[in-house]
Amino acid sequence: MIDLDDVHRAAARLEGVVRHTPVLTARHFDVRVAAHLLLKAEQLQHAGAFKFRGAYNAIAALDDAERRRGVVAFSSGNHAQAVAFACQLLDVPVAIVMPSDAPPIKLTATRGYGAEVVLYDREREDREQIGRQLAEERDATVIPPFDHPDVMAGQGTVALELIEEVGHLDVLVAPIGGGGLLSGCAVAARGLLPDVEVVGVEPEVRTAARDALETGEIVQRPIPRTLLDGQRTGAIGVGPLAVLRAVGARVIGVGDQEVEATMRALVARTKQVVEPSGAAGLAAILAGKVEVAGKRVGVVLSGGNVDLPVLARILAG
Amino acid sequence: MIDLDDVHRAAARLEGVVRHTPVLTARHFDVRVAAHLLLKAEQLQHAGAFKFRGAYNAIAALDDAERRRGVVAFSSGNHAQAVAFACQLLDVPVAIVMPSDAPPIKLTATRGYGAEVVLYDREREDREQIGRQLAEERDATVIPPFDHPDVMAGQGTVALELIEEVGHLDVLVAPIGGGGLLSGCAVAARGLLPDVEVVGVEPEVRTAARDALETGEIVQRPIPRTLLDGQRTGAIGVGPLAVLRAVGARVIGVGDQEVEATMRALVARTKQVVEPSGAAGLAAILAGKVEVAGKRVGVVLSGGNVDLPVLARILAG
Repeated sequence: MIDLDDVHRAAARLEGVVRHTPVLTARHFDVRVAAHLLLKAEQLQHAGAFKFRGAYNAIAALDDAERRRGVVAFSSGNHAQAVAFACQLLDVPVAIVMPSDAPPIKLTATRGYGAEVVLYDREREDREQIGRQLAEERDATVIPPFDHPDVMAGQGTVALELIEEVGHLDVLVAPIGGGGLLSGCAVAARGLLPDVEVVGVEPEVRTAARDALETGEIVQRPIPRTLLDGQRTGAIGVGPLAVLRAVGARVIGVGDQEVEATMRALVARTKQVVEPSGAAGLAAILAGKVEVAGKRVGVVLSGGNVDLPVLARILAG
Repeated sequence: MIDLDDVHRAAARLEGVVRHTPVLTARHFDVRVAAHLLLKAEQLQHAGAFKFRGAYNAIAALDDAERRRGVVAFSSGNHAQAVAFACQLLDVPVAIVMPSDAPPIKLTATRGYGAEVVLYDREREDREQIGRQLAEERDATVIPPFDHPDVMAGQGTVALELIEEVGHLDVLVAPIGGGGLLSGCAVAARGLLPDVEVVGVEPEVRTAARDALETGEIVQRPIPRTLLDGQRTGAIGVGPLAVLRAVGARVIGVGDQEVEATMRALVARTKQVVEPSGAAGLAAILAGKVEVAGKRVGVVLSGGNVDLPVLARILAG
């Protein structure tokens, strides 16, 4: 299992490369929930999401021979762009396996970073199988989206930076898809603040994280239909699950409409565009699903990559 | 005429109160115009716009007796919210004269800061006259939106902060309505960087700033119909004009559609919501109207207060 030292090592590798994203506050939100919310703005990260941290950390850890042979990644979007951009920076050849129904903004951005994009059908094909086969053919390294210690440690630098900037937190809230972000942040946060409560938020219609935490077993679930496209993975990772059970993390479900209302509030109150999954943590808080009254609460806004027509529809709502 | 010392004094008054807004960069924009653009994100300022700086500076400069008698302001929007919020912080009674067709988000926000709002008809009534009459009745102090040395000096802290953070600039680009922001920034920028070029951007259909700079005379123009609602004032100020002529500032016109395209690009590339007038400077650059190739260019994103339905329409465009 990774520990705080791994997160510190990731932070050292990322120094001068990652953006130290700002921590935003908004009186409006604080008044609504009678708490002090410290919003870590990862929509301002390179490639528009926290995923760059884990991807860069994992690729920078490869040796020269591995780098020359290249990497392969499979992703519903932000991980793809993150790996593509990290590979551009590190001059590593890269192929990305992406679902054919991924938001066009994410396909375009991934290709824009110079990556080869291989499309698959999310309903009928297994991206992991396609990715692993491609990697085998090319003798390339697979960079998985969450279930990898270097990826988890990289994502943990979100919480490390946040706490180094703002100090004590009572609660840390972040979205959970595969669990890379939440587990990395849990390790960093608990390492620095032993009493901090760790809360994950997943789509209401997807119970993969809640089921895994409750039973201790990972079951592959059908891919849920949800606005929160960053969290459509059918199961959380083995590594993340071990961490999240060890720290006693809780996971909460949030509905599409709660997220849409939060995205509108984020635009009106903070002028920030946050993608649906990126707004999940704040949405759970504003919906009264996390006990925050009187507390200092770190909230990870995890990304901002949302197609303009989708955003336009939500803002018009 | 104000000088760099006035801006430094304003910065000292604002210390601990103003938000030191981040400077954003985006590779996409830099590649498009072959320059390095440093975007000063005043949409993240208190009350969502740079106006807070000048308003707070002017109100904090009042003596105790003046503060007790209160202040009056007339504004097309952001100045109103800025004065209201500054008065809330400084515990000063305040009445704001606002056009009845101001964006609802601005009316709501102004009242939310505890201000009394007095509405007028933009087409038929003179807000300045209404404001001055109100102030006379109450023996209150008028805080004008731009033509006041403390307001100009306060706005100048935008450029002061930007240059203190990023160092040398070849060009500084900012929107111009009444000229408070551009003149304050010109004073700060020229004080620190004697060779910096100063460029203002106003709506294409409004030539008030260009006419005044060319002729040296201020003529009240009809209120233009433009998307850029922060720049619907019919004339620039006397104080700003003196500064802008002294520094040899240029002013450029920008069209609504250029601004809309820029607002979409800002969302897609930086995840920032910037209001139409706030995006005017960048829009002029992206439209090729400012010579920036090979240069370091400071660009003021001056505010982010745009109604959600308007933003939704622009993003859907």
